[in-house]
Amino acid sequence: MISVEEATRFVAATVRPLSVEYLSLPLAAGRILREDLRADRDFPPFNRVAMDGIALRFAAVEAGQPEFRIESTQFAGQPPTPLHDPEAAVEIMTGAALPEGVDTVIRYEDLTFRTDADGQRYATVQALPPRQGHNVHARAADRRQGDLLVPAGTRLEPAEVAVAATIGAATVAVTRRPRVAVVSTGDELVPITEQPAAHQIRRSNALMLQAAAWQAGAEAETFHFNDDPEALRLGLPALLEGFDAVILSGGVSKGKADFLPETLRELGVEQVFHEVQQRPGKPFWFGQQPGGAVVFALPGNPVSTFVNFYRYARPWLLAVQQPTIEATDSPVTAWLGGPVSAVLTEDVQFKPRLTHFLLVSLEAGPDGSLLATPERAGGSGDMASLLTSAGFLELPPEQELFPAGTVLPAWRCR
Amino acid sequence: MISVEEATRFVAATVRPLSVEYLSLPLAAGRILREDLRADRDFPPFNRVAMDGIALRFAAVEAGQPEFRIESTQFAGQPPTPLHDPEAAVEIMTGAALPEGVDTVIRYEDLTFRTDADGQRYATVQALPPRQGHNVHARAADRRQGDLLVPAGTRLEPAEVAVAATIGAATVAVTRRPRVAVVSTGDELVPITEQPAAHQIRRSNALMLQAAAWQAGAEAETFHFNDDPEALRLGLPALLEGFDAVILSGGVSKGKADFLPETLRELGVEQVFHEVQQRPGKPFWFGQQPGGAVVFALPGNPVSTFVNFYRYARPWLLAVQQPTIEATDSPVTAWLGGPVSAVLTEDVQFKPRLTHFLLVSLEAGPDGSLLATPERAGGSGDMASLLTSAGFLELPPEQELFPAGTVLPAWRCR
Repeated sequence: MISVEEATRFVAATVRPLSVEYLSLPLAAGRILREDLRADRDFPPFNRVAMDGIALRFAAVEAGQPEFRIESTQFAGQPPTPLHDPEAAVEIMTGAALPEGVDTVIRYEDLTFRTDADGQRYATVQALPPRQGHNVHARAADRRQGDLLVPAGTRLEPAEVAVAATIGAATVAVTRRPRVAVVSTGDELVPITEQPAAHQIRRSNALMLQAAAWQAGAEAETFHFNDDPEALRLGLPALLEGFDAVILSGGVSKGKADFLPETLRELGVEQVFHEVQQRPGKPFWFGQQPGGAVVFALPGNPVSTFVNFYRYARPWLLAVQQPTIEATDSPVTAWLGGPVSAVLTEDVQFKPRLTHFLLVSLEAGPDGSLLATPERAGGSGDMASLLTSAGFLELPPEQELFPAGTVLPAWRCR
Repeated sequence: MISVEEATRFVAATVRPLSVEYLSLPLAAGRILREDLRADRDFPPFNRVAMDGIALRFAAVEAGQPEFRIESTQFAGQPPTPLHDPEAAVEIMTGAALPEGVDTVIRYEDLTFRTDADGQRYATVQALPPRQGHNVHARAADRRQGDLLVPAGTRLEPAEVAVAATIGAATVAVTRRPRVAVVSTGDELVPITEQPAAHQIRRSNALMLQAAAWQAGAEAETFHFNDDPEALRLGLPALLEGFDAVILSGGVSKGKADFLPETLRELGVEQVFHEVQQRPGKPFWFGQQPGGAVVFALPGNPVSTFVNFYRYARPWLLAVQQPTIEATDSPVTAWLGGPVSAVLTEDVQFKPRLTHFLLVSLEAGPDGSLLATPERAGGSGDMASLLTSAGFLELPPEQELFPAGTVLPAWRCR
């Protein structure tokens, strides 16, 4: 039986970057970028007017000239016309490119206007601009042409989408979605549309895992097998070949119907480990089909399935979307989607020398800290306890008492 | 000019719950539930065996009986067969319904087995169970039939999906997606597939807003109008009628080309407010078409657009997916998707009597607190500063100096 940290390293060691696909920009949102995005022009690409008002020479206003003839008007999107008369001004709008001959913008709020008999307009400056270049967002002030803006490996959130659009990256290289087969096992399970007999329950783990895999950016389909080795031997090979990951729930403990590990080995899946020093989820089995899927065979109790998905399978699904396998050598806490720090709000005692995953609710404290309060869970079969949990704390095995105030790693599940 | 708090209340006052649609369970994941989910049976529905091993009468083992004849074997999913001989035991698997006549389960790890000449198996108990009912998850221990499990208004995360599946809610009532029209305006904008002239830029705000609206659970389409009142008068009515929200960027400040507020009023959109005591985003215009869309007309500078979307439009999009309009009376901080508390890591000075939205990076401190470090942003036109920001702090207007260590509301944007 191996430790949680060893199990994490074994799972991480199977991470290989998935292949690339090319998507148009709005559809690429949420995906992991697989190319560097660089500035095609300076940011901003021109001296960009930042306020509506008039553009003039700072030297003229600094020398005390109070009034400026409006020589022309410049809208955003118009090619800029140079200023001819150095003592005049250009009426100008936000977003316009600053014309040659002017360097400073004074906003409407700091101006008064008059019109003479010939219809010529004049602006009088009411408040002196503090410096040359005021209200002008200078060309290349933020980034220079060729600068790296968004490195490969970044998730395309709205800000990255905006930057990609600005540089004209209408199609971008992103990681394809991981393909996940979610497999429930167990003769006691009936479809959710059926009325179960007294000793049966409906298949809930598979749908839970499917929804959770979707949230991790994966495609996920659900399958079911009864506790029948022959059915598994016939059905599993296609899944091991056609998917990046097969996530099973149930059939891995020591019971007579738990032939799953044996069946998987018979099908050529190489066992990496079976049983981890943890609760819940000690019987967790993990393996890999050479050239095929990795197999997360999770215990079937709902809380075990849930916690072990978020502790091992979700980080794996996020890691394979990254462009490099650096994550495989990282310490546990550096895993993608890995834990944050949270403060335990009450004493917790746990005697077995096992890593304990403790369901908690999470809320922000008044000082900005994240407070974790243990759920009064009824054990690993108590699915309803997941409803009020935001995640789980990871309590290390070498300690028995965890006093209130202890800071511990917290894995978020919502 | 109104305060940020007043603007928030005005926006919140337009929230009305969107209508309901019925979706099958996997597709309903991520949506807001519009019906209460109640337990159709007890949780668990039967005395559920929690370990593989043997089931027996606790009284027998407590009385000192060391060995038990295996009378039958009970797998998960099989109708339970009652125990006939009170001194015998049932070999039993996790997930099985406990038969009548037994009350306690002893796991394999605490048993040894022998088989006699007739093939009859016997189990010897190596470790006494601590109590009657050990390793049995008793019927109704977690929830009773009829109990409220998931109230309307809850987002269907994986845990809720599992519970819905368990009770056979194969189709559930959820809020339909909000329909958002994202409209960019400005003659300086060209499509992202085009090469802009020196004084032009590509349309990035619309794609940013589309991606952000998607993240808030909305459907979103993008549109563009040049700075042409006639085009707006012709094009906007269909959007005001066909969408729940129209989010515009650009065209709301005091410039000559900023006729958007006037055009909107001409089209019958009732102005709720124009200009808010905030930076960035002072010219923010908000209105509502009677019987039609609400209109968020955001300033066109990328940082203004971004911050004001997350500060006003995203909470609105989340609120209209809720089943009740209680959110409309809530204080600012109770808004859905609203701010968390974060600790400023350095002194910040801001003199204008405006609420200041300050872009920050966010990271968890060693004590579990959320640390906010200001971005060195180049102003509201510096789109690239959004790449390194995780959100923004809301600095109240009545204060000028915010020392390091101040706890402030932080709005997350990634």
